[in-house]
Amino acid sequence: MHLDGPVVLTIAGSDPSGGAGIQADLKTFAARGCYGTSAMTALTAQNTTGVQGVFPIPPEFVQKQVTSVMDDLDVRAIKTGMLFDAENAKAVATVLKARFESSASESRNIPVVCDPVCVSTSGHSLLYPDAVKAIISDLFPISTVITPNKSEAELLLSHLGHNYSITNLEDMISGASQLCAVGCQAVLVKGGHLQSAMAEIIATQQKHPDVKVIKHGVPENNMEILLVAAPNYDEIQFVVDVLYEQGGSVTMFIRPRIESTSTHGTGCTLSSAIASELAKGISLVQAVDNATIYTHHGIQTATAIGAGHGPLNHFHGWVPLLVPRPTPVNPYPFTQMLIKSAAKEWKEYVEHDFVKLAGKGTLDRACFIHFIKQDYLYLKYYARAYSLLAAKSASFEQIENATKTILNVLHEVGNHKAFCAKFGITEEELENTPESTATTAYGAYIMDTGLQGDTTKLMMALMACLLGYGEVGLWLKKQSTLPNTWVKLDGNPYRHWIDEYGGEMYQEAVRLGLETIEACAAADTPSETRLNEWKTVWAKCTKLEKGFWSMAMELKD
Amino acid sequence: MHLDGPVVLTIAGSDPSGGAGIQADLKTFAARGCYGTSAMTALTAQNTTGVQGVFPIPPEFVQKQVTSVMDDLDVRAIKTGMLFDAENAKAVATVLKARFESSASESRNIPVVCDPVCVSTSGHSLLYPDAVKAIISDLFPISTVITPNKSEAELLLSHLGHNYSITNLEDMISGASQLCAVGCQAVLVKGGHLQSAMAEIIATQQKHPDVKVIKHGVPENNMEILLVAAPNYDEIQFVVDVLYEQGGSVTMFIRPRIESTSTHGTGCTLSSAIASELAKGISLVQAVDNATIYTHHGIQTATAIGAGHGPLNHFHGWVPLLVPRPTPVNPYPFTQMLIKSAAKEWKEYVEHDFVKLAGKGTLDRACFIHFIKQDYLYLKYYARAYSLLAAKSASFEQIENATKTILNVLHEVGNHKAFCAKFGITEEELENTPESTATTAYGAYIMDTGLQGDTTKLMMALMACLLGYGEVGLWLKKQSTLPNTWVKLDGNPYRHWIDEYGGEMYQEAVRLGLETIEACAAADTPSETRLNEWKTVWAKCTKLEKGFWSMAMELKD
Repeated sequence: MHLDGPVVLTIAGSDPSGGAGIQADLKTFAARGCYGTSAMTALTAQNTTGVQGVFPIPPEFVQKQVTSVMDDLDVRAIKTGMLFDAENAKAVATVLKARFESSASESRNIPVVCDPVCVSTSGHSLLYPDAVKAIISDLFPISTVITPNKSEAELLLSHLGHNYSITNLEDMISGASQLCAVGCQAVLVKGGHLQSAMAEIIATQQKHPDVKVIKHGVPENNMEILLVAAPNYDEIQFVVDVLYEQGGSVTMFIRPRIESTSTHGTGCTLSSAIASELAKGISLVQAVDNATIYTHHGIQTATAIGAGHGPLNHFHGWVPLLVPRPTPVNPYPFTQMLIKSAAKEWKEYVEHDFVKLAGKGTLDRACFIHFIKQDYLYLKYYARAYSLLAAKSASFEQIENATKTILNVLHEVGNHKAFCAKFGITEEELENTPESTATTAYGAYIMDTGLQGDTTKLMMALMACLLGYGEVGLWLKKQSTLPNTWVKLDGNPYRHWIDEYGGEMYQEAVRLGLETIEACAAADTPSETRLNEWKTVWAKCTKLEKGFWSMAMELKD
Repeated sequence: MHLDGPVVLTIAGSDPSGGAGIQADLKTFAARGCYGTSAMTALTAQNTTGVQGVFPIPPEFVQKQVTSVMDDLDVRAIKTGMLFDAENAKAVATVLKARFESSASESRNIPVVCDPVCVSTSGHSLLYPDAVKAIISDLFPISTVITPNKSEAELLLSHLGHNYSITNLEDMISGASQLCAVGCQAVLVKGGHLQSAMAEIIATQQKHPDVKVIKHGVPENNMEILLVAAPNYDEIQFVVDVLYEQGGSVTMFIRPRIESTSTHGTGCTLSSAIASELAKGISLVQAVDNATIYTHHGIQTATAIGAGHGPLNHFHGWVPLLVPRPTPVNPYPFTQMLIKSAAKEWKEYVEHDFVKLAGKGTLDRACFIHFIKQDYLYLKYYARAYSLLAAKSASFEQIENATKTILNVLHEVGNHKAFCAKFGITEEELENTPESTATTAYGAYIMDTGLQGDTTKLMMALMACLLGYGEVGLWLKKQSTLPNTWVKLDGNPYRHWIDEYGGEMYQEAVRLGLETIEACAAADTPSETRLNEWKTVWAKCTKLEKGFWSMAMELKD
């Protein structure tokens, strides 16, 4: 999630218990990828069981907050919630109207989602009667959409002289149309307090063939296989929200009803989600669709907290980013994480006695010869593994990188041969050396990993060797420059071998390897399951590398 | 992210522009996996350029908000921020003390992180002088840790009779120790307004060998390969926070300094992050470590917004969950998403003319024979692909499922043979049928996908066939039960074929397939890159299935 989402402003009350009000709005804005700002109209003392007190903010200070936000930030959508009294309702309408009228054409078109909060879920009145009038006369005309629930719609309709209960879809459609006549661009009458059966939905569709229907969570055409495990849709209840747009276009948003007590702040959440989608430039119908689905899953995935109606789970749509992003001062965070995840094994590998004795030049000649012969055999697996990587690749770039590495390995093999010649070992003897168990284990493990998994997993298996020898080369090189160093390069029989891994050509291969796995981890961020697989492969290969040096030291077959 | 994180309460001021105050606190709580609640002590009108006004909340209503939250929710940590005046500072201390003293032993131990906010980043005073005294005398003694920055520490120290400027690490350590003597359990003096070079850090370590040092973003031992691309750490500046704990234990938290204007609300964010970690039961040192890293990345990844000091990027540690979670009314959301992602191709496949004509019983016999012969050849690829899946599997369960499917395929092959015998085709003729291009394309594509990727990707390639034939079987079965159906089962020469795919045994295989891919997608949530790969494979196979029917209809070789 990044800060580059659009700025959304909520003008509403505060719910200290965090489930409704500006708290729910801010959580929703964040969850929908927007940057949240808030101006408070009233504070409440409330929790999941009810409202214990309300403290209204003076209208001038409400306006001052709105001004501070809008003077500085590029607000792309506004949501209004609990306005409490007529003074604040008017103050909000006034400050917004003044800003829309005075500003350039772009700001005039900031969408406004007006949630006409009248009564809390727990039944506490959150709006004075004279405030309803102010909202209708001053705020509705500048609203893109208003979002009353059943009882709010009934209250608003009664102020317009229409006294009836909303009990079915027909009532919702006619109510929405009558409310829209007041001057807002659209009305969304929410059906959370009603129950609709599929039969009623179909009958309404048949009576109003122009009504658009958007279903969620219900398999559609050509999904017979999914219906088998689903409930019988003729027997369950649905929630239907009805959107009426100026001009008469009607859309019904349908989803299966969830029985849950985690509904505190549902209205705040829905209206904030709509505002977030509008801020992104999404059309109203699509915005309402996205917002209803988001809210539905917020209820569905909530855990009950508190003694009454608990809050929704606002952040259901996010999972942790497990690999830190690279920064200028830390360009290889993923590799750092890998190394730290098996720090002990890594140290035992790159600071192995074999390495130290080679650095001192006192390593037993027989051990080195055993090592170099086995390494020759290991490198055959290693080259084959890069060939497998090329074979599994999806891009020419990946194929080219793998192939370049094979050429590097062949170069390394050439060095091994030259080295062995110095020690009196012929190429034939090299080729006919029996493979030790440590070599087989390591080589075959890499190939098996490559056959089992994808290219990234195979790369994880190839990295311990590539990076570890680079580390050994750099470490010995660095140690050799320290005062009174234990590393002896002059006259060291293994100097050529040490120089090889600390040298430019090998280090360039290391750099390429580092950048490749960092790019993989950044572009294809792993789940915990997958990251653990990668770490397991890395740790296993690190251990096998250590075993390889030990095999050489102990002259094991 | 789920609601099951611990509840954290912030008692602080409001920043309508969303970067500091309770807004930053709530964003931080959410980002650290906690459920955020908030009691407001004062509203401000502010933005990234400065503070335009402050409106204090009456002390009684501050207490009322705290009471509403704590009466209902299981608060696991409290953070206090801007308290503004002495009345509110005392009111907060009083309500917390009363609660700690009256309640069971568990609540007494709720950690309190006190951020002694005195001055805003923009220089606006946010605390009356007499409030400083109240914080020191009433709030510090119940605090787990206090988190002053340089100027706040200096102000607090001057109230204790210590008048000096904090200019280096030595001053930070002695300042923290003097502040801790007042009675809080620990003091974190923040170094964001100081610059520390590596040489000073090393000198301090040498002078105080007992001081623990925790570095972030700096490669450690055995990471020579990572140092190559990193900056020269002797030349850059670091930020050091110093934690002093009662008893004298000192820890320095070190990270490279970032030059950024996105620092509005850094203090609020850090203290809220510490409170979040403490709420999870994490030790203080680890909590501070996690919180400083989190805040560091929040600054690092921020995009500049507003005309002044912009906010941090609070949600840098999260990525979108791209596969919806299953629910009781929608148990197969991932499959639904796959089908919808290639809805046109899927419909053209499962409602192909071949299917319709077979359902009517009027399909040309030659076309069906061509199909059944090619399907016989295709099923060899298909069985091999499941064998490859078994070979790539990591668990006996996966191996067993793949093997069961191979046995199902062999059963299907038996049916094909019996069917062909009825049409006068011998087994030898079947086996020697030349493979059509459509068969090769589809079969080889599945094998290639299996060789390229991991088991999940291979399963995506196997699903279009498994699920599509299940869909065809169920669709024809359902159509046959409708009044005046166009499907004719009685006397239909292809009835046995139709019954096979709508039958229990095949549908059981479909169910197993559905549950396997749903479980894969849920347990190993894909990145966008990976999800797109899966969708591509699914769409490709769906298209190849359609091509397979067309090949049969047109008798193509």
